[in-house]
Amino acid sequence: MSNVVEATRGAIVESRHVVHVAVAHAERGLIAGCGDARHVSFVRSAIKMFQAVPLAEDGVVERFALTPEEVALCTASHNAEPFHVAAARAILAKAGVTDDALACGPHPPMYAPAAHALERSGVAPGRIHNNCSGKHAGMLALARHHGWSTEGYHRADHPVQQRVLQTLCEWSGLEPSAVALGVDGCGLPTFALPLDRTALACARFAAAADRGDTPAAMIVRAMTRHPEFVAGTGRLCTELMRAASGRVFAKVGAEGYYCAGVPERALGIAVKIEDGARRASEPAVLAVLHALSVLSVSAWERLGDFARPVITNTRGEAVGDIRTRLTLVPASPSRERQGGVSM
Amino acid sequence: MSNVVEATRGAIVESRHVVHVAVAHAERGLIAGCGDARHVSFVRSAIKMFQAVPLAEDGVVERFALTPEEVALCTASHNAEPFHVAAARAILAKAGVTDDALACGPHPPMYAPAAHALERSGVAPGRIHNNCSGKHAGMLALARHHGWSTEGYHRADHPVQQRVLQTLCEWSGLEPSAVALGVDGCGLPTFALPLDRTALACARFAAAADRGDTPAAMIVRAMTRHPEFVAGTGRLCTELMRAASGRVFAKVGAEGYYCAGVPERALGIAVKIEDGARRASEPAVLAVLHALSVLSVSAWERLGDFARPVITNTRGEAVGDIRTRLTLVPASPSRERQGGVSM
Repeated sequence: MSNVVEATRGAIVESRHVVHVAVAHAERGLIAGCGDARHVSFVRSAIKMFQAVPLAEDGVVERFALTPEEVALCTASHNAEPFHVAAARAILAKAGVTDDALACGPHPPMYAPAAHALERSGVAPGRIHNNCSGKHAGMLALARHHGWSTEGYHRADHPVQQRVLQTLCEWSGLEPSAVALGVDGCGLPTFALPLDRTALACARFAAAADRGDTPAAMIVRAMTRHPEFVAGTGRLCTELMRAASGRVFAKVGAEGYYCAGVPERALGIAVKIEDGARRASEPAVLAVLHALSVLSVSAWERLGDFARPVITNTRGEAVGDIRTRLTLVPASPSRERQGGVSM
Repeated sequence: MSNVVEATRGAIVESRHVVHVAVAHAERGLIAGCGDARHVSFVRSAIKMFQAVPLAEDGVVERFALTPEEVALCTASHNAEPFHVAAARAILAKAGVTDDALACGPHPPMYAPAAHALERSGVAPGRIHNNCSGKHAGMLALARHHGWSTEGYHRADHPVQQRVLQTLCEWSGLEPSAVALGVDGCGLPTFALPLDRTALACARFAAAADRGDTPAAMIVRAMTRHPEFVAGTGRLCTELMRAASGRVFAKVGAEGYYCAGVPERALGIAVKIEDGARRASEPAVLAVLHALSVLSVSAWERLGDFARPVITNTRGEAVGDIRTRLTLVPASPSRERQGGVSM
């Protein structure tokens, strides 16, 4: 198969992940893919840049003087390192609310040293440590800006979430009625989209950023100039955006989803691992960027530990690795007509 | 497909795991399965009962007066709850060695409250907390019993590991040369077997236990009478063996492997999730036991949280569940001839 990520041990493939990929161009729609490029699944946190669009579009960034770092945090699945927590609190303070207004549930910081430090300090993980707290803080600022109640801002029928759904539909070219909803890990609505539509939204976002259009340009600039605020220490989103020197924006989502965009080429990429494994989505998105010749040789080498991770055991021995076997297939015009990816 | 485990969110299947199953009878070999019943993968910790066989067979249990609880711990992927750690230390003491002799690497206790307690106490996780420390302690006792060096007991060419390989080959009916080796999470050799051969080994072990033959009877009795020593609080192996009241032995392995045996019916079961996900292997092994009418109605109901787990988010809301769609297909005689499962 040309769309798998394999986990090896010794000379054997121990486990195997099926990969679905869609690559879209802002004007031409789906141009390549592998697996089922129209696979429908929840986009989860991989589209957080679109959830931040209303902040730029409606004037929230200006109104509350959000810094680029804070805008980046609004698109983040962050590590809850001290600088993430401080930035989330800064957004809340500017919006005139406190931690208690956050609707996301508590979980330990994703960054192990931060989690250990919290554990040792005897402080229980709070909502502020949720990897989505920046996004939630931004949504609270959006509600305050419009004079909407902050109560229940996370529910699908609240104006904040209606505004987000409208945004995602604008960029992906779907009717709201065509988008099934689920509840995300942090309590917000999440959206089931065909993979090619997610890729198309990213491609259009990339093209708009390249043209310098707000909101895309503001958000992509914030993400790519402050990538440590989008994820954090040791995380692929951060390292990929650093290695690509501003030429790529990237965002991971739960259950094996990954989105990326290449502004100068008006390309959008959406990856979904059939079984939801993150260990497969990270090498897969890098393999796609490599296949598209997006990454320089030095960037590709720098990201080697993410592209082909070594599997180690509790003794620290290398016992296997993760290998991506992925061939992008050009999208056929007939399939495009059938699938109805019209621009 | 009739061999998948699905993770849903709202009304959508968000992720999907492919399941391979082999069900064998001790005399008749492969009798049913789904997916690829001869799928080759590493058996990992799912065959720890066979790694404990030499302890019973060679007289280690008698020599060092190992208790049934300690024998159960030798087959365990334990939680490192205080009673597990105490039993592992007791085995080491009886064998006349200390924690330092353990070759397994350190990792935090699998049981979260035990990990938190250790973290708060400021003690770093040690080798004794490795979920395999009971198995390693038993192997150290085996080495001492035979007068073999305890140094390097974890290496494939050490007499301890040669003895283990010989044991697994005897029960599965394979030549050692037909078994590919890898290095397990704890540093020991692990073995790549066709799924039907693992199931056959479990079936023969089950039948031997039913006949009252040592070593199978001693090990199965230890596991089923002291299931909390095989895994621990909140773990499926423990709860399944409790619910089945001694009629089933069960052992989880890494990367989506699961083994079970039903002594009174001479049945062995081996499950491998193609992508290695434990969240799928647990419901799958229960679905197989249910399909084989092994579990009573009350046992099945008691295990409902494992059979169809609810997916909750950080707010504690139920946002989806795990569903098993699995139909066992009787093994065809022609496939058996091809596959060469001769008894």
